[in-house]
Amino acid sequence: MNKIYIIGVGLIGGSLALDIKKKRPEATIYGIDNSEQHLLEALELNIIDNKATIEDLDKADLVILSIPVDAAVELLPKVLDKVSDFGLVVDVGSTKLDICKVIENHPKRRNFLAMHPIAGTEFSGPKAAISNLFQHKTNIVCEVEKTAFKLQERALNLFTEIGMRMRYMNPESHDKHIAYVSHLSHISAFMLGKTVIEKEKNERDIFDMAGSGFESTVRLAKSSPAMWTPIFKQNKANVVETLEDYIKNLTQFKNMMQNDDFEGVFNEMKDTNYIKQILNGIK
Amino acid sequence: MNKIYIIGVGLIGGSLALDIKKKRPEATIYGIDNSEQHLLEALELNIIDNKATIEDLDKADLVILSIPVDAAVELLPKVLDKVSDFGLVVDVGSTKLDICKVIENHPKRRNFLAMHPIAGTEFSGPKAAISNLFQHKTNIVCEVEKTAFKLQERALNLFTEIGMRMRYMNPESHDKHIAYVSHLSHISAFMLGKTVIEKEKNERDIFDMAGSGFESTVRLAKSSPAMWTPIFKQNKANVVETLEDYIKNLTQFKNMMQNDDFEGVFNEMKDTNYIKQILNGIK
Repeated sequence: MNKIYIIGVGLIGGSLALDIKKKRPEATIYGIDNSEQHLLEALELNIIDNKATIEDLDKADLVILSIPVDAAVELLPKVLDKVSDFGLVVDVGSTKLDICKVIENHPKRRNFLAMHPIAGTEFSGPKAAISNLFQHKTNIVCEVEKTAFKLQERALNLFTEIGMRMRYMNPESHDKHIAYVSHLSHISAFMLGKTVIEKEKNERDIFDMAGSGFESTVRLAKSSPAMWTPIFKQNKANVVETLEDYIKNLTQFKNMMQNDDFEGVFNEMKDTNYIKQILNGIK
Repeated sequence: MNKIYIIGVGLIGGSLALDIKKKRPEATIYGIDNSEQHLLEALELNIIDNKATIEDLDKADLVILSIPVDAAVELLPKVLDKVSDFGLVVDVGSTKLDICKVIENHPKRRNFLAMHPIAGTEFSGPKAAISNLFQHKTNIVCEVEKTAFKLQERALNLFTEIGMRMRYMNPESHDKHIAYVSHLSHISAFMLGKTVIEKEKNERDIFDMAGSGFESTVRLAKSSPAMWTPIFKQNKANVVETLEDYIKNLTQFKNMMQNDDFEGVFNEMKDTNYIKQILNGIK
């Protein structure tokens, strides 16, 4: 695997480049990005070795597509058109149904593998790229049976080497469950941030009162709108369902408080403490 | 200040004891607690030097009341009855209006100082006590003018020495603002945890998909119901108001999604990214 092309040299693409370089010192890593500024930064930070364009992809052993999910759905067919019979394309976006659909009948379907490495931070761009981001994290692999065996193996070995454990799932299940464990957390944090800013914007002093609890709960509200808007759009039905459940639970909690049912309030929290065991299980 | 009594040797009381010991090596720290088990743990962990009871408080130079806010409102008048004219009582609970009210006409009002050191973790009990918890954190001080000058000074010096910056505020403002920057974060996390557990309880595997984003957003849902229920009860009106604002914002976000107004969704997130500057200001 000598020629690796990364399309989108931001947080995820850049962090993958850093880890892959360590595991494949013989490979040359090429960066492709809409933003000339990001390419220059990625070169300067030694994330990529060279710039490239879509036209060069016929020489690729591996192409990693790490761009916003709306752009990915548009670009993936063109990328597959370009790669050779021996080239492998993986995408690493946060939604999997639309991307798998858009190439289901593509003549090079067997050259594609859909993944979602579940890792990240609230930052974005090449400067946000960090080493070992994927260590001990989960990589969801979709429709693995539709990828040529030797190409599967190439990708799975590489992602195992950078520290990930694989989990196999169909795209529908992926998008449904990820709405709960990831997308809802983001909206919950964004709306918490909004609610507090609206109330307190004229009283900057008040934020002196914000402790580490607020800080960790609202952290995801720093995330990139350009990345998250297309995710919510593609996963609209699932995300709307999670929001309905969440709003229902919040409303019920509020009603308990208004009815002075503090035994109910206590029990809600007591039951939810079960999250401790679940989070311990993640580690 | 030779005799310091800590009523409630849990996370906050225990952590205060650890820091105060370092700054006042000459002092003896006495623990008072409903739970004999907690007292034994606190002794074993060297958090306190001796056990004591309410009857001993006439000998106290300083009493720190760090128990759930409903118990604090009941116990504070009795504690003030007991202390000598030279004893200082501070309470460190998360609500301030009810506690200030309950002793407003107490003959020893000038022996009391109301504080809220804004620090903590999601854990509880003596084993959760840690050193330096209060370093660089904010301590809200209420109705400072109602405390005898020499006693104020004693408390403010001590809390400054353990690393806190003081902010002065009336109890009404404290309870109103803390509902936004602290209490709402807790309910938001608890209901996020509940929503995800309800949906996924039969699919434990799914939590493999939960990344660090979910983990930090839901962290506060590990918090103690015994501590938080009385806080929500005492601060009911303010907390219900924050919940109404939060639910309104979530509903509006959901409606935008359902109406395919993804420009609106983008702008909501973009505007809320302003939380970055605010959080940088906290540090």
